Amino acid sequence: MRIDIITVLPELLKSPFEASILKRAIEKDLVEVHLHNLRDYTTGNYKQVDDYQFGGGAGMVMMIEPIDKCISQLKSEREYDEVIYMTPDGKTLNQGMANEISMKKNIIVLCGHYKGVDQRVRDMFVTREISIGDYVLSGGELAAAILCDAVIRLLPGVLNDETSALTDTFQDNLLAPPVYTRPAEYKGMEVPKILLSGNFPKIEKWREQQALERTQERRPDLLEK
Amino acid sequence: MRIDIITVLPELLKSPFEASILKRAIEKDLVEVHLHNLRDYTTGNYKQVDDYQFGGGAGMVMMIEPIDKCISQLKSEREYDEVIYMTPDGKTLNQGMANEISMKKNIIVLCGHYKGVDQRVRDMFVTREISIGDYVLSGGELAAAILCDAVIRLLPGVLNDETSALTDTFQDNLLAPPVYTRPAEYKGMEVPKILLSGNFPKIEKWREQQALERTQERRPDLLEK
Repeated sequence: MRIDIITVLPELLKSPFEASILKRAIEKDLVEVHLHNLRDYTTGNYKQVDDYQFGGGAGMVMMIEPIDKCISQLKSEREYDEVIYMTPDGKTLNQGMANEISMKKNIIVLCGHYKGVDQRVRDMFVTREISIGDYVLSGGELAAAILCDAVIRLLPGVLNDETSALTDTFQDNLLAPPVYTRPAEYKGMEVPKILLSGNFPKIEKWREQQALERTQERRPDLLEK
Repeated sequence: MRIDIITVLPELLKSPFEASILKRAIEKDLVEVHLHNLRDYTTGNYKQVDDYQFGGGAGMVMMIEPIDKCISQLKSEREYDEVIYMTPDGKTLNQGMANEISMKKNIIVLCGHYKGVDQRVRDMFVTREISIGDYVLSGGELAAAILCDAVIRLLPGVLNDETSALTDTFQDNLLAPPVYTRPAEYKGMEVPKILLSGNFPKIEKWREQQALERTQERRPDLLEK
């Protein structure tokens, strides 16, 4: 999989891809992530990427021209399955969408900033608009990092233990059951005895029950899906 | 406001706080963000922070002892309003929650990793569990960065133009209207004429209408709140 991220703040995205699972996935050649600085696609001395909005009002808008140049350049080099725009009014990301996107070959991820991009960018280039949740961020960069993380960890070979992603919260519309590790007793607080019993069928049943109860209590909406 | 982030991967969180609005907010002393490496609170040569889960199964669990030490150390230095645990089975973050948290003075944010923390950490220390959305990440670090970004940009003085956050998507349960900037015509695509009219009451009305239509089309659920 290849991911091209278009941003005005490539430096913000540096460390997430230089640590942990994302770094390992890149090193293992399971995914390529390329950051493109939108300012490299501007003309003129000021490297202008944004301007005031027509009709007045606070906040700057990202201009169409540099974005057009960057996307057109990329598209001239290879085919893209999707041009994704990260925006709070996009479709809310969920695990199913992450699964679906993890099947794509080449995607472009465009990070909004300020008040967002000129509407004509959305009309002309964007194939999918994604929000990571109902809150506003200072830019789309962290949202793009979230999308990449959620997608890349699903690629075959990225997680060490392939069963690990399968028992995640949301993969089966259930929250995960509580987990415990050593010591078995800490400041008077004990691990549930069942987990120390060695009776694996019983443990499995307990976990299913706990997952169901936790979901009923915290997220009954997941059970209705 | 002071935010203490507890993590096994402080290096992952470096660049988000060294760029853009978050950097500026820190430089202006509007917020303090401290990263704490959980490995500094371990005993023994291996700096062990995680272990296999009781009862078997894939994935490691973060141990209670280093977390206890780190939180206890912080609490001995000052009072905290909240100990927040970033976890996919927490309450889903929204703009109202971000507003509420932006009013706090001192908060601790604990990043989960692997299969999460020992349940006893949640029972003993955590006052609030937050998820940034219905998807699984490789760790809580990016989720913590999202929470910080959503909260910090709401602190007075962080955004240059104070009206800017007020017209954001979600602040009034409406998505933002489309925005446009120069040029007025690009490759045959024109900006809506109304925005060039200079008739500001009419422009305001058009924007309200557009915001309402976009919300009805994309997120009717927001209008029911």
